[in-house]
Amino acid sequence: MERNIKLKFEYDGTEFCGWQRQPNARTVQGKIENKLKQILGEDISLTGSGRTDAGVHALAQVANFKTESTLDLNSILKGLNSLLPEDILLKDIEEVDLDFNSRFRAKSRVYQYRIYLGKNVFLRRYVWEVFYNLDFEKIEQTARLIQGKHDFTSFCVAESSREENICEVQKAIWEKKMENLEFEIESNRFLHTMVRSLVGTMIDVGRGYFSLEDFKNILKSRDHKKAGLTAPAKGLYLVKVNY
Amino acid sequence: MERNIKLKFEYDGTEFCGWQRQPNARTVQGKIENKLKQILGEDISLTGSGRTDAGVHALAQVANFKTESTLDLNSILKGLNSLLPEDILLKDIEEVDLDFNSRFRAKSRVYQYRIYLGKNVFLRRYVWEVFYNLDFEKIEQTARLIQGKHDFTSFCVAESSREENICEVQKAIWEKKMENLEFEIESNRFLHTMVRSLVGTMIDVGRGYFSLEDFKNILKSRDHKKAGLTAPAKGLYLVKVNY
Repeated sequence: MERNIKLKFEYDGTEFCGWQRQPNARTVQGKIENKLKQILGEDISLTGSGRTDAGVHALAQVANFKTESTLDLNSILKGLNSLLPEDILLKDIEEVDLDFNSRFRAKSRVYQYRIYLGKNVFLRRYVWEVFYNLDFEKIEQTARLIQGKHDFTSFCVAESSREENICEVQKAIWEKKMENLEFEIESNRFLHTMVRSLVGTMIDVGRGYFSLEDFKNILKSRDHKKAGLTAPAKGLYLVKVNY
Repeated sequence: MERNIKLKFEYDGTEFCGWQRQPNARTVQGKIENKLKQILGEDISLTGSGRTDAGVHALAQVANFKTESTLDLNSILKGLNSLLPEDILLKDIEEVDLDFNSRFRAKSRVYQYRIYLGKNVFLRRYVWEVFYNLDFEKIEQTARLIQGKHDFTSFCVAESSREENICEVQKAIWEKKMENLEFEIESNRFLHTMVRSLVGTMIDVGRGYFSLEDFKNILKSRDHKKAGLTAPAKGLYLVKVNY
């Protein structure tokens, strides 16, 4: 009898060419499918909640797969964690109804972006090290402008094949603790490189390169050439997928 | 006129074969001496406050060197930080009296040892991931036994050439925050691999393999074969050198 298995896992994206399976490239999906095949003795096709780019991290990526195997969940969990490389960790496993699809059932996703003001050898793989003097209040004000329903074409790096680039942002909040800045954003969907483009452009406001008014105009323009910096992948984390 | 320059820097020890210069090995001392030669145009010999082993990190290692160069300190600082690899960061530079010696003038050194209870892909290079059930109070009690003046031969991994293995431990304290355990120890001197051997053996007490009484006897025995686990290098940090 076919079963549908849902996985939750974290990964350090530094040494991966992103989530999506590719021939001859080290990817998260590729690694997990490979190890699942070894454990279950059948070809496995994982459906992820969404792709992450090369260098992007995940605290709780979600994926599911169908299998004919009757192997108990705990054995799959232990087997995977003993076979997976040390930059992927399976945190949770459960059986779900056959209709469940990690990608299409997702109601919203939450990303974090982490910045360190200065240099730090221990954080260099995990944050964007920023040296500008920043007006943090301005950055917070900018974040308020992106809450709600907007067309985010300006912050979409790739040419989008979709006509429709409207996302509904439920949350867009900055926090500052000492030298650490953290931006958290929740939305029903995300366009390609949207969080990194938003963060880079908000930092451009914080360092005085753009005004708040500029930011409003960029958002309205639906033109990515108007946007500012694209923040590096290494500061970005997929932290939650809500179903 | 000869000058004596004192440096303070942090490094991620993961990809270094330790502090001390060695032919054909990537070492912290080797990298810095190399770049200093490039900047100052003369052979430079760095005196470190002490060696750190392969994999051991530093938040504030101290070293000094003598030079005939008249280049200003800020140019040396900026030059070094632009040339050094991203796992070393020079944090401070100052000119000191010609008699100053990073190693012999040190009054005490402070080390931290960091443990994470479980697995975490982002911390795996920077902590010891421990899966035992631990009695934290027992570990704290054990730490109290090592405060003060003791012969620490039992916790010295290498055959010591010195007769005298007495260290005066001013501080030996554990802290626990959620899944993170942190041990901080200050002493006038440290024997080879002493902190890692102490931490491993304290964890052996915490997991019930040794009793407190056992620990006292190990300390008294002056015999390293009696000691327990040696904690891995990647959880160890040199955090301060006091002069």
